[in-house]
Amino acid sequence: MSKPTPLSGYPEFLPAERAVEREVVSRLSRTFELHGFTNIETRAVEPLDRLSKGGEIDKELYVLRRLHADDQAGDSGLGLHFDLTVPFARYVLEHAGRLEFPFRRYQVQPAWRGERPQEGRYRQFTQMDIDIVGKDELPFHHDVEVVRVMVEALGSLPLPRLSFQVNNRKLIQGFYRGLGIPDVPAAIRAIDKLDKQPADAVAQLLVDTAGATPEQAERCLALATIRVADTSFVESVRALGVEDELLDAGLAELAAVVEGCAAVVDDHVTVEANLRIARGLDYYTGTVVEIFMEGYERLKSVGGGGRYDALATDGRTTYPGVGVSFGVSRTLVPLVADGVLRGSRPVSSAVLVALADEDSRTSAQDLADRLRRRGIATEVAAAPQKFGRQIRYAERRGIPYVWFPQEDGTHQVKDIRSGDQVDADPDAWTPPAEDLQQTIVTQSSS
Amino acid sequence: MSKPTPLSGYPEFLPAERAVEREVVSRLSRTFELHGFTNIETRAVEPLDRLSKGGEIDKELYVLRRLHADDQAGDSGLGLHFDLTVPFARYVLEHAGRLEFPFRRYQVQPAWRGERPQEGRYRQFTQMDIDIVGKDELPFHHDVEVVRVMVEALGSLPLPRLSFQVNNRKLIQGFYRGLGIPDVPAAIRAIDKLDKQPADAVAQLLVDTAGATPEQAERCLALATIRVADTSFVESVRALGVEDELLDAGLAELAAVVEGCAAVVDDHVTVEANLRIARGLDYYTGTVVEIFMEGYERLKSVGGGGRYDALATDGRTTYPGVGVSFGVSRTLVPLVADGVLRGSRPVSSAVLVALADEDSRTSAQDLADRLRRRGIATEVAAAPQKFGRQIRYAERRGIPYVWFPQEDGTHQVKDIRSGDQVDADPDAWTPPAEDLQQTIVTQSSS
Repeated sequence: MSKPTPLSGYPEFLPAERAVEREVVSRLSRTFELHGFTNIETRAVEPLDRLSKGGEIDKELYVLRRLHADDQAGDSGLGLHFDLTVPFARYVLEHAGRLEFPFRRYQVQPAWRGERPQEGRYRQFTQMDIDIVGKDELPFHHDVEVVRVMVEALGSLPLPRLSFQVNNRKLIQGFYRGLGIPDVPAAIRAIDKLDKQPADAVAQLLVDTAGATPEQAERCLALATIRVADTSFVESVRALGVEDELLDAGLAELAAVVEGCAAVVDDHVTVEANLRIARGLDYYTGTVVEIFMEGYERLKSVGGGGRYDALATDGRTTYPGVGVSFGVSRTLVPLVADGVLRGSRPVSSAVLVALADEDSRTSAQDLADRLRRRGIATEVAAAPQKFGRQIRYAERRGIPYVWFPQEDGTHQVKDIRSGDQVDADPDAWTPPAEDLQQTIVTQSSS
Repeated sequence: MSKPTPLSGYPEFLPAERAVEREVVSRLSRTFELHGFTNIETRAVEPLDRLSKGGEIDKELYVLRRLHADDQAGDSGLGLHFDLTVPFARYVLEHAGRLEFPFRRYQVQPAWRGERPQEGRYRQFTQMDIDIVGKDELPFHHDVEVVRVMVEALGSLPLPRLSFQVNNRKLIQGFYRGLGIPDVPAAIRAIDKLDKQPADAVAQLLVDTAGATPEQAERCLALATIRVADTSFVESVRALGVEDELLDAGLAELAAVVEGCAAVVDDHVTVEANLRIARGLDYYTGTVVEIFMEGYERLKSVGGGGRYDALATDGRTTYPGVGVSFGVSRTLVPLVADGVLRGSRPVSSAVLVALADEDSRTSAQDLADRLRRRGIATEVAAAPQKFGRQIRYAERRGIPYVWFPQEDGTHQVKDIRSGDQVDADPDAWTPPAEDLQQTIVTQSSS
């Protein structure tokens, strides 16, 4: 075998980098569990008819084919999932009789898309989703809850500043309807282009594609520029003079989300009403949210989600849901590459037990087991080299402490960073908490 | 969408079952980390030329094809990995310059094989592997170490009794060579059939395919029947009267593995020298091990591994390794289906906060947050139904405690299994440890 070259679009972490990802997933999982979200995993494949929607995403689907299948094409009729929502919807339908609703779950798994690789966009990427799904109905307060839980969860991580930008599809649709726009979906599509095109081009699009008058287009743009971190947007929208029941409902819901998150936002994570957020033409029917990271606006959103009144349906029963997804790979691959986050060390071991000679390996192992029983990750030196070389061995591996059993039965432990060497009792000594396990080091803390 | 039907070969766990798998993976991970194994994840795909070996396994390979690719075939040249060893070997080669050797890692990921689904054999299955890999050389003591760590790790789980059956390729090969068998690989293949064919048929095979005399075949069979839980096999082999240097080396290594594990075996996990274990014609060059589970012999081994003197090579450098793999899905899917293991509950929540009316949702959430801050997973009732219905709601969800804020500002908590309801301080009350998190319930303990 020759030396392999990296595969574009399939980023892989070195051990210390993987420790960052593990810690992020572990902290988020803990918060989700404390809020009653249980973990599930779905298989990586779904039947093609569930994945294929005939749209743009179809081009990115990976289909599985058996290498030496008997039939001509060999296609299995299965494809790799491209998000965690499609498999979750299928899981809910398939297992509905054995689930209790509202069903609260989180999921951390890879997904696959055959798109052109670029920063933040990979062919295999890990997502972390929380959703609450009801049977036939799902109270609105769960919209507030999922956004709030994700704010709290991401706020506990050492990431650059995050901004949750929230809107409501009822608000937009009600506004357009109350305004008398002939083609509401076309208007949503046009406004969605505001991040790529100047305002007057979008106004022209509204006239050309949505049948708006120039005056209506003006008011659509006025709506889209409203962006505040409190509920004052309600008055600003009222001031635009549009009356509609759906608009009223949307305003009330959006205000409730912004108010409901007030207790968990801080300098580090903010929640804003941003009335141009639409999240494309997906299945969202109420709350919509996108998450942006300061200094990484080029990644577009690092997460998002919303309310869908029909996450899944089997014809008889409909399952409404609300959820938010966080792009683990999309966020961490760039942050790790930029050195914003790094792992404290590439190994789990906090201690290396030095070896005087090969005959003392058994007693060194017994000693290591004493440390392990108290939760201290320990390895024994691979070879009984001179102690200086064993210390350099620990240094290269990133192990902070070297343990020296003494001939008289006592013990010493050396912090190889400071060089301090002290007497230590193997049944009592413990490293400082920050050295106990691999952890995340941020640019500012290093 | 219609109601989906299960996909054969792709088992999925319900939430309480998934809790079993999570706990197993978490306990094993903890043990591996305490022994200095660090976690990595590799991408799910590898270039086909690394996966395809031209053998039986090729039939089981899944190739990725883009659904609407521009080129005619659409094949990406990539396939899903069928184990964790091939991607690990590639990872070591690709990142060798940035790894420290001996490199100790564990990996928990799914793998895919397009084989005929049956109990214990799935098209997608999760494996958990530990390996230690050296650069150019890897001391033998690591063979003892990986087997011992896996014995300790699996021994900490509430599984049926496990038997680690260990052998050594040097021992077999040296014995056959010393005996004068003309075709050693053919002899290994023949002996490998002992679990499917009677001894005299295998003796005939040894004569027909390996060129053995009937007397040599007899002694090969005699070797293969040796199976003991201590090092007395050394004398038994010596009694067969074969002399060979490689045999000597194999006997010494196997004795060291059996002795080295003596401190961690017990009634629940045993380690035996079993001289007919060969693990097929794979790349193993020394220690080989297979793991069997009592009452589940029909699954064949639930794990295995061994020593390979060339896990990977880039032509200039060779990376020897030793590792053991545990079949998470192969073991847990049958145990969960049989009710041997089950999750204590399907939700993470230990407490449901009851709601007197919808207006008290905010104060109920604040209360829930007080419990969560002390590590108690809590959810708030979805709707302010009559308390009797809220208790039944908790019961259906499997939440053991319901919390009732009282009108006078005090609190009560009810264990809905016993019906006991007591006064409780939200800043002090804690459920018993076994109720704090989802955990594993065994048949005997339930």
